[in-house]
Amino acid sequence: MQPENNLSNQTDDSAEETRSQEEQNSEIIQELIEKENKTYLKTILTDMHPADIAEVITRIDRDKQSFILELLKTDKVAEVLVELDTPIRKEILGDIQENRLVSIIRTMDSDDAADVIGELDATVAHNVLLAMPTKEFREVKSLLRHDEETAGGIMALEIVAVDQDQTAQQAMGVLRKKAEEVEDVYNIYVVDQQGLFKGAVSLKDLVLAKPKTKLVEIMDREHIAIRSDMDQEEVANLFLKYDLVAAPVIDVQGRLVGRITVDDVMDVFEEEASEDIAMMAGITDEEIRGQSVFRISGVRLPWLLVAFLGEIASAAVLIHFEASFEQILVAGFFIPLIMAMGGNMGIQSSTVVIRGLATGDIALRDTGKRLTHEISAAFLNGSIIVLLLIAVVAVWNHWPIFGKVMDTSAFGMIWEIPVFSIVLGIALLTVLFNAAFIGTLLPLLFKRIGVDPAIATGPFITTSNDVMGLLVYFSIVSFAINRL
Amino acid sequence: MQPENNLSNQTDDSAEETRSQEEQNSEIIQELIEKENKTYLKTILTDMHPADIAEVITRIDRDKQSFILELLKTDKVAEVLVELDTPIRKEILGDIQENRLVSIIRTMDSDDAADVIGELDATVAHNVLLAMPTKEFREVKSLLRHDEETAGGIMALEIVAVDQDQTAQQAMGVLRKKAEEVEDVYNIYVVDQQGLFKGAVSLKDLVLAKPKTKLVEIMDREHIAIRSDMDQEEVANLFLKYDLVAAPVIDVQGRLVGRITVDDVMDVFEEEASEDIAMMAGITDEEIRGQSVFRISGVRLPWLLVAFLGEIASAAVLIHFEASFEQILVAGFFIPLIMAMGGNMGIQSSTVVIRGLATGDIALRDTGKRLTHEISAAFLNGSIIVLLLIAVVAVWNHWPIFGKVMDTSAFGMIWEIPVFSIVLGIALLTVLFNAAFIGTLLPLLFKRIGVDPAIATGPFITTSNDVMGLLVYFSIVSFAINRL
Repeated sequence: MQPENNLSNQTDDSAEETRSQEEQNSEIIQELIEKENKTYLKTILTDMHPADIAEVITRIDRDKQSFILELLKTDKVAEVLVELDTPIRKEILGDIQENRLVSIIRTMDSDDAADVIGELDATVAHNVLLAMPTKEFREVKSLLRHDEETAGGIMALEIVAVDQDQTAQQAMGVLRKKAEEVEDVYNIYVVDQQGLFKGAVSLKDLVLAKPKTKLVEIMDREHIAIRSDMDQEEVANLFLKYDLVAAPVIDVQGRLVGRITVDDVMDVFEEEASEDIAMMAGITDEEIRGQSVFRISGVRLPWLLVAFLGEIASAAVLIHFEASFEQILVAGFFIPLIMAMGGNMGIQSSTVVIRGLATGDIALRDTGKRLTHEISAAFLNGSIIVLLLIAVVAVWNHWPIFGKVMDTSAFGMIWEIPVFSIVLGIALLTVLFNAAFIGTLLPLLFKRIGVDPAIATGPFITTSNDVMGLLVYFSIVSFAINRL
Repeated sequence: MQPENNLSNQTDDSAEETRSQEEQNSEIIQELIEKENKTYLKTILTDMHPADIAEVITRIDRDKQSFILELLKTDKVAEVLVELDTPIRKEILGDIQENRLVSIIRTMDSDDAADVIGELDATVAHNVLLAMPTKEFREVKSLLRHDEETAGGIMALEIVAVDQDQTAQQAMGVLRKKAEEVEDVYNIYVVDQQGLFKGAVSLKDLVLAKPKTKLVEIMDREHIAIRSDMDQEEVANLFLKYDLVAAPVIDVQGRLVGRITVDDVMDVFEEEASEDIAMMAGITDEEIRGQSVFRISGVRLPWLLVAFLGEIASAAVLIHFEASFEQILVAGFFIPLIMAMGGNMGIQSSTVVIRGLATGDIALRDTGKRLTHEISAAFLNGSIIVLLLIAVVAVWNHWPIFGKVMDTSAFGMIWEIPVFSIVLGIALLTVLFNAAFIGTLLPLLFKRIGVDPAIATGPFITTSNDVMGLLVYFSIVSFAINRL
């Protein structure tokens, strides 16, 4: 029941097989719960990986979740809790007795303990903290001071730190002492007597060094150290850029205070990407795993309302142009085209900028360059689209490609189809320019004022694009009616 | 000039400072290139991290890129090449002499060597392969057999493998011998005489074990091994789920063939997230870092054409309903609302499904459950939006909130505003249902037939949503006109 030793997934079919292994697990467990076969359940659960138990818990009913956790040992419960997603964990934490909670949290790494305590009700958190031994109380307290989304918020305090005057052999001694507390050791960190970070020695270099070698001789003095107030997205990009597995965290004075490991960084990666994707689509990230329809509806509604209000404004724009609308009904037929092309162009530009900002490939100082790029691309593709549009409209009434001809009689003799298609083309090109311009500038503007640029795509940008696009379109059409 | 030791980024301002450090680097280097001050340039470049040199290369002009690479030593060029993005690397590879290319590639890890050779022109790749020593030739050849997007495609062949009968001390001997070849060692892999993977010993456990301890006694028998044909996205999800730093790769028979390290997995993460985001927005991933406006336009055009053709179909739908359109012009004013609300609802549903499929939180067998969820949420939010719409339309003509009243005179006495708003509401609700249904089902369908589900959002889904939405809307309005 451990994670299978041999995992393969060449095709979707085999992906389904792997999945159904997990499904089978949760089915068997469901059955055992109903039969109240605690002995067999305990045996199965003891052999399972905490991440797998967490997955089963996510899939079973609310009332059976506590039943399973009660069968587990304290340290296993701690491991499972760490693997759970925040919304489900919050629910489960509410069910656990305070004194059991204290023992569970005490077995956790400092960073996980701080995360869990941060999710408790204020009074429960207070009681749990008071019930902890002084050392752990201080550790968790010091971690809770950091903003959740910074390096300090994701670091753990468990590190192997050795004084710079010591030898490889002495460092091995420290490692031996710390072995139980620090689960995964990749580097030994070297500090001076003030606790200032001086460098790192990889475990490999340490074991291959001669016992009497001084650490200063083998340490990497250029090893990256991360300031505790660095944003977690920046941290993730540093790990990606320099291929890090772990990095020491230092405070403002340069003192070694903790360590970030790559597993936490991967969580940040997934979190940030999901957050961006969610925001682009007008949903929230947590929702993907959420359970209740009411909650799903609740978090989506605000985005829909933004779009709703924007499109009511669109209706107002159209009503404002009612006279032109009646004169040239055919202009109405191309509302969807104008809206959709502007929307797509805007999203293309804004997404490139947003993703570029997130991965660090685009910086605020690139604004001018980016604008030139996007406007040029809009001009190129816009021209192609407009030429195509003129061609489509031109042949439409010669060979009614969609069964019916377009009624352009309102234009009189001078407003034949070709003239109309040219007016339409000019309007479309203007809308596309506008969309590329807004789509590029808005995320950069949001970034500058400290708002997550990802919000500048999705309902927010498409809706404002719609209103502006229709305004531009009908202004040009009305102008043309009055002059031509 | 190394990556700065203390990196901090609490505010956007300090982010700008860090960035401008890099910018300064590339400015200084640009200047030195123009002054042809090779000596100073060499000194600077020798001290820089390959990832930083790669960043500078990405920012400078094409003709100066080769100039810089010529100043670097072979192994440094190799490191820089590995850090570059594929499109830029491809360009640069074309400039390098074949015999220099061979020496550069020989210093690379097997997985990077295979990647680079895979990017060369077929004839150059052939020549380079032939010029390599037999052992390396075989290694790269064996790696090139794997699909790029599988575990085999991202694994490296450099591993420390030890026979299961050996002791901790003997394993340390093997590690010492392999130390130069295998850069980062986290685990020693244990195999039997047939080369079958048996388990893993973490470096920490190895160094803390007594010298005479047999590996079988301290090895983790349940350590995850990944089949070489597993999809890289699945691999990434496994690393995330089980917090892995490295994992052994095995072939169909269970023989140890290589190892995947977390730095490559992070690249996969970024790649897959960027790919999904790009596809949602109708752009391509590479484009974000791309340089040429023509290339940008070229990759975006197909998506715009999809939208263009779809919206031409929308125009045809509207022309088909021309009669109703003329009778109730006011129906036209709400085209943007119908389109936008349907579009947003569809994207919300499809994004949840697509992201869920990517992270493994949603599986094909969840189809029914997911549909129920999405339809229920559409019903809830749809009802709220429709009630709001009816309210807005009702008050509109009492107090012309947008300056003008809506002209519903075409309806006659029985088609007063309230009646119209109810017809509009029914149409909107139908469109929303349809959007949620298609938005949920399409990605799952794509997944089943083996197409990347991420394509089911973005221009593809919004455009089909527009056409269907307008068809539904005007069918209902026409029906109402004829019956009421």
